[in-house]
Amino acid sequence: MWGMNATTFDSLHNPTFLQACMRQATPHTPMWLMRQAGRYLPEYCATRAKAGSFMGLATNRDFATEVTLQPLERYPLDAAILFSDILTVPDAMGLGLSFAQGEGPRFASPVKTEADVAKLEVPDMAKLQYVFDAVSSIRKALTQDGKGRVPLIGFSGSPWTLACYMVEGKGSDDYRLVKTMLYSRPDLMHTMLAVNADAVAAYLNAQIDAGAQAVMIFDSWGGVLADGAFQAFSLAYTARVLSQLKRHGTDGKIVPRIVFTKGGGLWLQEMQALDCEVLGLDWTVNLARARALVGGAEYAPGVSNPGKALQGNIDPNVLFAPPAAIALEVAKVLDSFGKPFQGSGTGPTHIFNLGHGISQYTPPEHVAALVEAVHSHSKKLRN
Amino acid sequence: MWGMNATTFDSLHNPTFLQACMRQATPHTPMWLMRQAGRYLPEYCATRAKAGSFMGLATNRDFATEVTLQPLERYPLDAAILFSDILTVPDAMGLGLSFAQGEGPRFASPVKTEADVAKLEVPDMAKLQYVFDAVSSIRKALTQDGKGRVPLIGFSGSPWTLACYMVEGKGSDDYRLVKTMLYSRPDLMHTMLAVNADAVAAYLNAQIDAGAQAVMIFDSWGGVLADGAFQAFSLAYTARVLSQLKRHGTDGKIVPRIVFTKGGGLWLQEMQALDCEVLGLDWTVNLARARALVGGAEYAPGVSNPGKALQGNIDPNVLFAPPAAIALEVAKVLDSFGKPFQGSGTGPTHIFNLGHGISQYTPPEHVAALVEAVHSHSKKLRN
Repeated sequence: MWGMNATTFDSLHNPTFLQACMRQATPHTPMWLMRQAGRYLPEYCATRAKAGSFMGLATNRDFATEVTLQPLERYPLDAAILFSDILTVPDAMGLGLSFAQGEGPRFASPVKTEADVAKLEVPDMAKLQYVFDAVSSIRKALTQDGKGRVPLIGFSGSPWTLACYMVEGKGSDDYRLVKTMLYSRPDLMHTMLAVNADAVAAYLNAQIDAGAQAVMIFDSWGGVLADGAFQAFSLAYTARVLSQLKRHGTDGKIVPRIVFTKGGGLWLQEMQALDCEVLGLDWTVNLARARALVGGAEYAPGVSNPGKALQGNIDPNVLFAPPAAIALEVAKVLDSFGKPFQGSGTGPTHIFNLGHGISQYTPPEHVAALVEAVHSHSKKLRN
Repeated sequence: MWGMNATTFDSLHNPTFLQACMRQATPHTPMWLMRQAGRYLPEYCATRAKAGSFMGLATNRDFATEVTLQPLERYPLDAAILFSDILTVPDAMGLGLSFAQGEGPRFASPVKTEADVAKLEVPDMAKLQYVFDAVSSIRKALTQDGKGRVPLIGFSGSPWTLACYMVEGKGSDDYRLVKTMLYSRPDLMHTMLAVNADAVAAYLNAQIDAGAQAVMIFDSWGGVLADGAFQAFSLAYTARVLSQLKRHGTDGKIVPRIVFTKGGGLWLQEMQALDCEVLGLDWTVNLARARALVGGAEYAPGVSNPGKALQGNIDPNVLFAPPAAIALEVAKVLDSFGKPFQGSGTGPTHIFNLGHGISQYTPPEHVAALVEAVHSHSKKLRN
């Protein structure tokens, strides 16, 4: 990993996000928002109406490109993230994904029996070509004067999070079915998670080959697991994904890997052992404590653990407050992390984000206030 | 607090629960289950059908007594808990609580405006007389040969948890309305929480006067708050409740106080400062770490912080696995806490419970297997 200290991201006009991922100094704290291309934007709703459905949007390269770029037109965000859904992989496994209007995702054929588990296989990546086409198209659209405006993040759900949906068949508030399988037939759960992990790795590698410049694993439901079960059924399979990931993108640059377990703050120290560059944090986590625990020290020759860059973690509900209150809460989050590393090697860095996807009810002008507050306060913090 | 070391609970046939609350040795790890009187029991459903509705059940002293005792007839549980709901207090404030069939609680008049907040007052406890009557009736019914079978736990929602329901008007998955108030008008939120805290204190004190032998504050939604907001808007008002609570019950015995913040594991060290005897933990918390952090040492003269008894924390979904798997998971939880204190003073103790209320879909015979496993394995652990 130390060989990467000299990594530069000169193929970008705004390399701050990738620099911060690699624990390099940046002039401001880079930021993006989970679900930044989403229903809170009227232009997104207009494109979605044209596409007819969520999957109509996600499976069409031009529409996916259009909505991915929309938030970047409005706000000076420091990264783009592929517009897609975490459930494309199980859909390609044949589970039949659909999004009913006003409801969440649903699988036509959830995994219910031992025979269902036995049938699971890493899907042919050709079935997910629409995703890789979108990645290439977005990357191209982001390129100006031969240079990218901001980097493009690819992503996938974690093996455990995919398993939750695959067994429950839809969102759940108690995870009864998937946990019944976990506690009753841990062998079946391990079989499913191994397939999921290998599928996620192949999926992310294909996104990297298509042009993704960073990849993120969303372990959205890791935090519902008991201590012990988290390590065995979520963390271990996230590690299995990471061990298979390509390290360099189409431009020869290093591709940073971000892992975010919502509700995983208690396991931060164990997550430090993951072979990834960035850990995502939700708003329950104190950033000063997280930095002290896993943020690492400034680079020193002979120090073997460089720590993780930290990404997060404001409560998206802050965006319902007036701009002055938003600025106050932004300052609290940035100040809690403290002054990021500013030298020429590597050290503790912070990427600002929400601790969860942005709400569809968010006023778009409040997002503008948030971005402005992050950039201006984080510049002040460096002086 | 040290004056309590000599506390005995000789008015009970089975004092293990109260002993463990006070960090005294017990021959087995005492246990009870959150929502142990509930829909998973056919006899509960039969009584509820007679009562016509949930509130019909909760407001009728005889029905409330009947369902409180039902799980004790089936299982050798070590404590009874008042059958009621956490939302009785805002109902008495005039918000109009109802339970629609198949849905959660709902308030007819949620708190939406500054004027709504200004109107809030600590309710006349006479409006909650049905609860105190139920407490007296249950305590009497538990008494045999002049002695109680097991102790009776009273309870309330925490000020913050009540505020969530009061503002949202019902359960929520994003807490958008209550957090909008919190971030936009923290002054209003503090006003509401102060009223709630004083109301909860009066409510718990009246339960103690009616015969409750321990009290528990359910901070069910504390874990949805951001770091910083939790301390200011939940923890501070739980502390305000605790500071007002009576310390002795109708029998002159000490009344232990339990605080449970679901999702609050990251703030355990800050919760140690609460003036209470027991901290509840959900299944994400490693019991060995929690014990090391807040479980305290064995009593030694001159040591000022005696630590907390710990209550929790198996995932209720374990109850969907077969009995052998349940026994395995029970052993993991008990072993994770380790050997409880066994001397004659005070030291680290554990009360076994679920990390959340029992599911209505739980097979009753699996609960029998759980209780048997806890009692038998915890006896073995002591040898």
